[in-house]
Amino acid sequence: MSTDPRIDRAISTAFAALSNCGACPRHDDHADLPHISQRAVHDIVDEFIAVLFPGCHGHGRPAMGGRDYAHLGHFHTLVATLLDQAQRACVHADGAVEVAAVAAAHERATACVIDLIDHLDAIQADLREDIQAAYEGDPAARSTMEVVLAYPGIIAIAVHRLAHRLLTTGLPLIPRIMSEYAHSRTGIDIHPGAAIGPGFFIDHGTGVVIGETCRIGRRVKLYQGVTLGALSFPKDADGNPVKGIKRHPDVEDHVVIYAGATILGGDTVIGAGSVIGGNVWLTHSVEPGSRVYSHQGEPEITTTRRSKADS
Amino acid sequence: MSTDPRIDRAISTAFAALSNCGACPRHDDHADLPHISQRAVHDIVDEFIAVLFPGCHGHGRPAMGGRDYAHLGHFHTLVATLLDQAQRACVHADGAVEVAAVAAAHERATACVIDLIDHLDAIQADLREDIQAAYEGDPAARSTMEVVLAYPGIIAIAVHRLAHRLLTTGLPLIPRIMSEYAHSRTGIDIHPGAAIGPGFFIDHGTGVVIGETCRIGRRVKLYQGVTLGALSFPKDADGNPVKGIKRHPDVEDHVVIYAGATILGGDTVIGAGSVIGGNVWLTHSVEPGSRVYSHQGEPEITTTRRSKADS
Amino acid sequence: MSTDPRIDRAISTAFAALSNCGACPRHDDHADLPHISQRAVHDIVDEFIAVLFPGCHGHGRPAMGGRDYAHLGHFHTLVATLLDQAQRACVHADGAVEVAAVAAAHERATACVIDLIDHLDAIQADLREDIQAAYEGDPAARSTMEVVLAYPGIIAIAVHRLAHRLLTTGLPLIPRIMSEYAHSRTGIDIHPGAAIGPGFFIDHGTGVVIGETCRIGRRVKLYQGVTLGALSFPKDADGNPVKGIKRHPDVEDHVVIYAGATILGGDTVIGAGSVIGGNVWLTHSVEPGSRVYSHQGEPEITTTRRSKADS
Repeated sequence: MSTDPRIDRAISTAFAALSNCGACPRHDDHADLPHISQRAVHDIVDEFIAVLFPGCHGHGRPAMGGRDYAHLGHFHTLVATLLDQAQRACVHADGAVEVAAVAAAHERATACVIDLIDHLDAIQADLREDIQAAYEGDPAARSTMEVVLAYPGIIAIAVHRLAHRLLTTGLPLIPRIMSEYAHSRTGIDIHPGAAIGPGFFIDHGTGVVIGETCRIGRRVKLYQGVTLGALSFPKDADGNPVKGIKRHPDVEDHVVIYAGATILGGDTVIGAGSVIGGNVWLTHSVEPGSRVYSHQGEPEITTTRRSKADS
Repeated sequence: MSTDPRIDRAISTAFAALSNCGACPRHDDHADLPHISQRAVHDIVDEFIAVLFPGCHGHGRPAMGGRDYAHLGHFHTLVATLLDQAQRACVHADGAVEVAAVAAAHERATACVIDLIDHLDAIQADLREDIQAAYEGDPAARSTMEVVLAYPGIIAIAVHRLAHRLLTTGLPLIPRIMSEYAHSRTGIDIHPGAAIGPGFFIDHGTGVVIGETCRIGRRVKLYQGVTLGALSFPKDADGNPVKGIKRHPDVEDHVVIYAGATILGGDTVIGAGSVIGGNVWLTHSVEPGSRVYSHQGEPEITTTRRSKADS
Repeated sequence: MSTDPRIDRAISTAFAALSNCGACPRHDDHADLPHISQRAVHDIVDEFIAVLFPGCHGHGRPAMGGRDYAHLGHFHTLVATLLDQAQRACVHADGAVEVAAVAAAHERATACVIDLIDHLDAIQADLREDIQAAYEGDPAARSTMEVVLAYPGIIAIAVHRLAHRLLTTGLPLIPRIMSEYAHSRTGIDIHPGAAIGPGFFIDHGTGVVIGETCRIGRRVKLYQGVTLGALSFPKDADGNPVKGIKRHPDVEDHVVIYAGATILGGDTVIGAGSVIGGNVWLTHSVEPGSRVYSHQGEPEITTTRRSKADS
């Protein structure tokens, strides 16, 4: 209670008036549905990064083939936390309240989590190629250690590879919370539905958007501000966009896309080995080996002899 | 104390040399002015999000009309923390040291805080429309729950609606710290002075800038990288920009603005129902129902048969 | 241990399979190399901000010439933490395991840290000019206190000035972790190698990229989305980019660069007092006092009398 009665009155009135935020349509019917913790999911992501990069983000020394038991304990805790949130997400998505329905949702969540654990070494192998691609692709990179500790593109792709695997097995909500956490940290917005090959490097990265139905090959390199987006999307009878249609481009192996380029459309394919220049706007396919540059046009330059520095 | 005397000496010298950072012109005269804690304001924002989205970001179960007392306790703590920071901000802005001046500043802060509490249900009602607009506006959105838990645009507009209300009643400093916190988390930079109608949706959002004197209608949709900015601003006799002039555009109801568009100027009005295409540069008004597209120009495409993938 | 034996089995298998992340090539030979903590470096940055802006971000009251002993204690703790991480970074970069090599690495780290402390008052003096430039350069800024508490550009340049000094004296890894922390918080990506004069102001800032070999003069002002980047870079016999070449532009005193402009190339010099317009693409030098504007082209505007609002 506050010392000021006006404030207490205001709080009481507001608290009675505040209602459902509109996010839970079944709120009144299913008041006992469990809640998902955004913060718990963020912590899960941090812990997975520690597991995947044991020498850089890990707890103490690298794991070295299972002999580091403190590290193994962290891993168990991480998986238990993920399982809890995954079960909540499945129960919530199913609106499960009956015992059998809850059990089925829990079992589905368990399967998703086990599948992710089973794929962690494959994810780590892809990330090794991502690290190498970053080191080779940026003259400013002094070591692979620097890449892991200081390159936002590595965090973005690491989180994506985890979230994408979970989405692939049908886990609801959690993958998007993970990807948005990476977006918040890095400015790189990759929908967990996108399929991305190994050796992927995004330099700088702020403003990059990669849509849900993108397919990206091996050794692709992107710079800041690149959009791989939708050209337009069909709407249903109610005027709402139809969900689940291929809306975003495909990018084949060894493509480089420079800063600010916009590539749109579900039928658009960027052929292998192509280079897309800065600020290019592209809404159709280009064949392998293409060099695509925008006519930037020479800017208009006038010179006033009196610069502000002289005045 | 360090074990290395060279370090201790360096610290002593630096500590004596470090002085006022330049942010507090009245520093020497008013050394007892209270300080504002950026971190406390960030926590306040997080707690307000928990209050406004009780089923998603909240502490345990939804509030359901005041019956959840644990939740009510959080609310009281939140308001007390906000009141403390608001009073510090008012005292600081007034340079108040005399008892009467401090009391007047405290009373002003109290009025701002009560006004915000009184408007929380109206803010929540606007946010319900924002959530619905996001769900309907993005084919990738699977549920309104996903929108609340994983869409940066919802966080940005929620924080904005709080900060705007506080700015409207004249609270100094706090609204801008709140909006910059949202900017840091989302890449979306909305000045708290902007007036924004319900049903507002920003997709992806990184790089969006919405200026202080913008007025935006109902059901407006923006994509990443959109700037609603100033064309130029008049300067006073000393060459400094004049504060408080209408410098940013108005956007009427049901407008869609695609990624990277730049709309500038205090006299610019985007008429209701208009669509502004990607990367458009617009410095004048367009009438209702306009479709505005940039001549992107066909990029120059050359093909080298030998792609890097083949070499 | 989990209650589900399938999960325990999956964890055991994954833990045995997970190996080196690829960031530490010397991992097997030098398993005892110390690790650098990203989180510790982030905390170091936060504490330096408290030291540099004692009246705004500091612990309690401003330092006022060394008389605030609580503040001095924070400073000692901060330096000890930095020294620890700096020593780890030097040991790691050297691959030092022998006692003499470790001692040499520690001594090098100590020299870097002392040099930074010795330059803190010069850094604070530059930041005072940065704050003033922000206040004078943005009509929305109501006070210098607001600039320090709510402008991302101030955080970005404060962290940069610290990181640049450490890089200048040869400290590995830490400067880039610091700059990436600022990038994550602000969307502003300044490589610590860039040399930047006092009175530097970046407004909004999301998407700004400033490359490693940029040189920027006094009183320069940038808006969001500006890239000062590389045009292309030479590759060595293996096809890898050559490190350490001048690749990024120089910007002389009193230049203003508006949002979205791209300026590329190590030979490009923007002469003093020039103004570069929004979205300009510039790959060559311009002389002092130039006004450079892009031919944005008038967008194509069609009007459908039936706006969505009317339908």
